[in-house]
Amino acid sequence: ARMNYIHDSSDIYRRSFEIIKSEMNLDHLRPDLVVLVMRLIHACGMTDIVADISAHENLVAVGREVLAAGKPILCDTQMVAAGISRTKLHAKNPIICTLNEPEVKDIAKQIGNTRTAAALSLWIPYIEGAVVAIGNAPTALFRLLEMLDQGMPKPSIILGFPVGFVGAANSKAALAASTHNIPFITLHGRRGGSAITVAAINALAKGEDI
Amino acid sequence: ARMNYIHDSSDIYRRSFEIIKSEMNLDHLRPDLVVLVMRLIHACGMTDIVADISAHENLVAVGREVLAAGKPILCDTQMVAAGISRTKLHAKNPIICTLNEPEVKDIAKQIGNTRTAAALSLWIPYIEGAVVAIGNAPTALFRLLEMLDQGMPKPSIILGFPVGFVGAANSKAALAASTHNIPFITLHGRRGGSAITVAAINALAKGEDI
Repeated sequence: ARMNYIHDSSDIYRRSFEIIKSEMNLDHLRPDLVVLVMRLIHACGMTDIVADISAHENLVAVGREVLAAGKPILCDTQMVAAGISRTKLHAKNPIICTLNEPEVKDIAKQIGNTRTAAALSLWIPYIEGAVVAIGNAPTALFRLLEMLDQGMPKPSIILGFPVGFVGAANSKAALAASTHNIPFITLHGRRGGSAITVAAINALAKGEDI
Repeated sequence: ARMNYIHDSSDIYRRSFEIIKSEMNLDHLRPDLVVLVMRLIHACGMTDIVADISAHENLVAVGREVLAAGKPILCDTQMVAAGISRTKLHAKNPIICTLNEPEVKDIAKQIGNTRTAAALSLWIPYIEGAVVAIGNAPTALFRLLEMLDQGMPKPSIILGFPVGFVGAANSKAALAASTHNIPFITLHGRRGGSAITVAAINALAKGEDI
């Protein structure tokens, strides 16, 4: 009673990337972004995201370097933290999500913002040189940009993939327009999410071609 | 230096659902699915998924009942397990993901299948009446259907949202065509993922209208 499907994971992987390569539009995509963007596509099943990708020219080079150097990864949600492949992080980077810390609720009230945005106040001891991975909440990305405007130490890269209908597109436009010169990658519009964010981290951690 | 965005989470939530309601096509969607599907849309930022949703007529009723009764939730990935809102599970349902159990690698070799599919062999003690949540791997959904064909005890509901280019569409078509009469919901085609799967569980657990 075996159903007819491919059972071998390397075969599934290889065929998936063949399909992605055959369908994705490589025009205007910098060569060093191609493998990374293929992995984002693989995570969401949509080849048309290429047109909405925007990235700083140093994103891939700096991202690989700081992950290999063991810099902490700061995540807005537990889903992002849970998806990161520990086995690919050879430098055993700390993976930090402060959303469920007990003081976050009070901070949210104090600053008049969401819990997800308030959780960033607890990132400050780790932020300098860290990898920031925002896969869910537009308010977290807005708050990050505000804190940078206020002089917070800079992370090394920003993976900005909030998803949804209120604030997502605007927060990602603000990231792409920000003047802090921090290497970033984003997917403009409403689409985004934790799976795409995790795929970006895992791709940069793996640091190889497909 | 405050940026211009909505800071209040209930306000963000309310406006998001106003946008979703104004854009989504309700034709051919059974009334009891509307709230659930709105939450799936909220999780992925795409109102056009409605056309690809397929669900058993008893999915919502049975799903609410078994979650309220404390049945275990079996997840294919740690990301799905991490995203489920514990605070909405008033019956403190066990959340189980067997993917990282040490014996999974050997089982995969024995059965000639992926690790994700092999992990289902460890679901057998919990499967009867459980909630199955597959948010990533087509081979896990194929394997589930095979095990049911072979007489494994039935789960109460199946949330089938594998994503990707190889097997995802076929595994979801097989779920919708399966003859086991187990209430299910799926999103046909390549799209799917852990965020949508988690949104389905959280919506059924919450059990209210928006």
